[in-house]
Amino acid sequence: MSILVMKFGGTSVADLDKIKNAAEKVQREVARGHKVIVIVSAMSGKTNELVGWVGKTSPLYDAREYDAVVSSGENVTAGLLALTLQEMEIPARSWQGWQVPLRTNSAHAAARIEEIPRANLDAKFDEGMQVAVIAGFQGISPEGRITTLGRGGSDTTAVAFAAAFGAVRCDIYTDVDGVYTTDPRIEDKARKLDRIAYEEMLELASLGAKVLQTRSVELAMRFKVPLRVLSSFEENTDTSGTLVCDEDEIMESNVVSGVAYSRDEAKMTLISVADRPGIAAAIFGPLSEAGVNVDMIVQNISEDGRTDMTFSCPTDQVLRAERAIKEAKELGEINFQELVADTDVAKVSVVGIGMRSHAGVAARMFQALRDEGINIRVITTSEIKISVLIERKYMELAVQALHDAFELDRAA
Amino acid sequence: MSILVMKFGGTSVADLDKIKNAAEKVQREVARGHKVIVIVSAMSGKTNELVGWVGKTSPLYDAREYDAVVSSGENVTAGLLALTLQEMEIPARSWQGWQVPLRTNSAHAAARIEEIPRANLDAKFDEGMQVAVIAGFQGISPEGRITTLGRGGSDTTAVAFAAAFGAVRCDIYTDVDGVYTTDPRIEDKARKLDRIAYEEMLELASLGAKVLQTRSVELAMRFKVPLRVLSSFEENTDTSGTLVCDEDEIMESNVVSGVAYSRDEAKMTLISVADRPGIAAAIFGPLSEAGVNVDMIVQNISEDGRTDMTFSCPTDQVLRAERAIKEAKELGEINFQELVADTDVAKVSVVGIGMRSHAGVAARMFQALRDEGINIRVITTSEIKISVLIERKYMELAVQALHDAFELDRAA
Repeated sequence: MSILVMKFGGTSVADLDKIKNAAEKVQREVARGHKVIVIVSAMSGKTNELVGWVGKTSPLYDAREYDAVVSSGENVTAGLLALTLQEMEIPARSWQGWQVPLRTNSAHAAARIEEIPRANLDAKFDEGMQVAVIAGFQGISPEGRITTLGRGGSDTTAVAFAAAFGAVRCDIYTDVDGVYTTDPRIEDKARKLDRIAYEEMLELASLGAKVLQTRSVELAMRFKVPLRVLSSFEENTDTSGTLVCDEDEIMESNVVSGVAYSRDEAKMTLISVADRPGIAAAIFGPLSEAGVNVDMIVQNISEDGRTDMTFSCPTDQVLRAERAIKEAKELGEINFQELVADTDVAKVSVVGIGMRSHAGVAARMFQALRDEGINIRVITTSEIKISVLIERKYMELAVQALHDAFELDRAA
Repeated sequence: MSILVMKFGGTSVADLDKIKNAAEKVQREVARGHKVIVIVSAMSGKTNELVGWVGKTSPLYDAREYDAVVSSGENVTAGLLALTLQEMEIPARSWQGWQVPLRTNSAHAAARIEEIPRANLDAKFDEGMQVAVIAGFQGISPEGRITTLGRGGSDTTAVAFAAAFGAVRCDIYTDVDGVYTTDPRIEDKARKLDRIAYEEMLELASLGAKVLQTRSVELAMRFKVPLRVLSSFEENTDTSGTLVCDEDEIMESNVVSGVAYSRDEAKMTLISVADRPGIAAAIFGPLSEAGVNVDMIVQNISEDGRTDMTFSCPTDQVLRAERAIKEAKELGEINFQELVADTDVAKVSVVGIGMRSHAGVAARMFQALRDEGINIRVITTSEIKISVLIERKYMELAVQALHDAFELDRAA
């Protein structure tokens, strides 16, 4: 018995017609002999409506009640899809998180999956069930209360089921037809990738590519679940979409696989910080406590016992960051001359596992930007990624220039 | 610890403001020292929306999936009311049917309650919970699937909790302020009753008074649960609304407590039926199998081995009834000359436990109708009820005449 996991997001089950369309995708896989586990999101808009009601009712809500309320949207979709499949004479039934049970910890609204026992579903598969439709995004805590998994929870649910049931693949149906070399709205030569390595997808997701949630990619990588991203709204073939897989399964790839960007970045610099052991902790501890998501960090060479410290964070966290740093200064924990915030920057990154074995990627990147007259403010690198902060008005130009420089419009 | 059960219907929790209003009613009872079990319906309109989706998806739906879908509305309200109570600093939490657990049989979409174990709720009450908010209308089957209780399921849930927890009372909050001697839209002298006996309420509910579901009244009567019907939208005092209780607790009452009516009745007569033992079964068996709800049945005196058989049913079941009877004739199971349907009738009834000890109620009723020139087509009686079928255009007039004749505008 080969099990396939399929996941349909909110736009893919937005109304009864779209649910019918999703059911036809499932039907095709059943016809191929798969037993199918389908994970569904709430109809698009429904979860936001529920979240809105909770927020209005109780600004500092009890996360346990939040979970009880917001999980209800997925239950509706799961039942409706099971009914649609039954109308097609496919033996199907819906499962809510607690019925599986999908066991999580008690971190309500952001729960971690702990275990998905196979017994209940397997018993029904043995009795002839062809399709198990699972309400995504939800589970049950050790206390028997409903939990939700937080952002991207349905993708994560899908990958977790695929891992638990040894699925041949996990297909994520969405409103785009795959992962692109960059955002096609910015670069019309952007090319859909047939395959991408887990590590690359992870970097791209972290950098803001919306197509998959970071957490689901991490889980897929850990359990080696082949993950395919494809469109709900097109006819699909066996090679549709983009396969996220182990790098061993990618025969040839470009040095760089994709160009990512993030528009809402701010750069903050503490000028002339008294440099001493522990100074980084003294700065970034308070920022972390204030809930500031610090991304890039750069420290200049120290001169005369003083240095400049620069970091980036999302634009909407600048005020919070300033307050945290000023408080730390008032408490005497840090000492600096001036705090300068530049909210007019954007981040552009190139990502590719090919960088590991190819020298000169950074040089080629910086050259391409220089050729366009784009000044680089901050640089950070990882093993498979180089990111730069630049003036925001050059963002689109930089993405296009890098896409060209690394010849991403052409397959390897 | 005294436990009070409160139930809020769909119009009483239709939006966040109304939920707030319901929470204030609960708060008042908590302040009086009650532990409270609140049963909630879905926000008005929500269940109909879900039922509509199921019907469109699958006309002959799997009732298990129907239940999984339509039960979700109550979960939302339960969570939102719990949050609202928490905002008022009242320790509250929501419970879905399977969490309690409210155990039912497997008759999906029309399940019967089998057991409500107290352990889970009691443990939380012991830990300091003041209010348990229960999603009404739903339970869990022996197979671990979600069930719903069918029409009036939330009222029934409320009474069942009151019985299981030995509640001091079960308060049903709705959009009217109690049970009236008759419909105030027809008779403006209609008077709200302070008290009404279970048996009377049961007859009135069966006769079409919408304020309480028959099933919940039956359950309240069986377990001697005092049931109070009162308005969500008024300031309530200890004696607001109508108390449905044992007749022993009603000191004085009118001979007749109320006048009920049903507009959509049809009268059907089989003329010159060959009278023989078993003829009634031969007629009403097929009707029952065809799903016709036969109400009144009258058989004339037999002459020459032939008789007329008259029965009533809802207007919209006439075609179904005709078909069933014609089929039975074709199969030779019954033999009659003619089938006459009269869809232009209405049923008017007087109800009162006082009838048991007072003679002459029927005579007074028939006199009042005769005085208005209203012809009676069919009569049936029970121990505490007399119903007549009359021409529909006289229905309002008959209700008013009977209300006057039995002096229902004056308390006993």
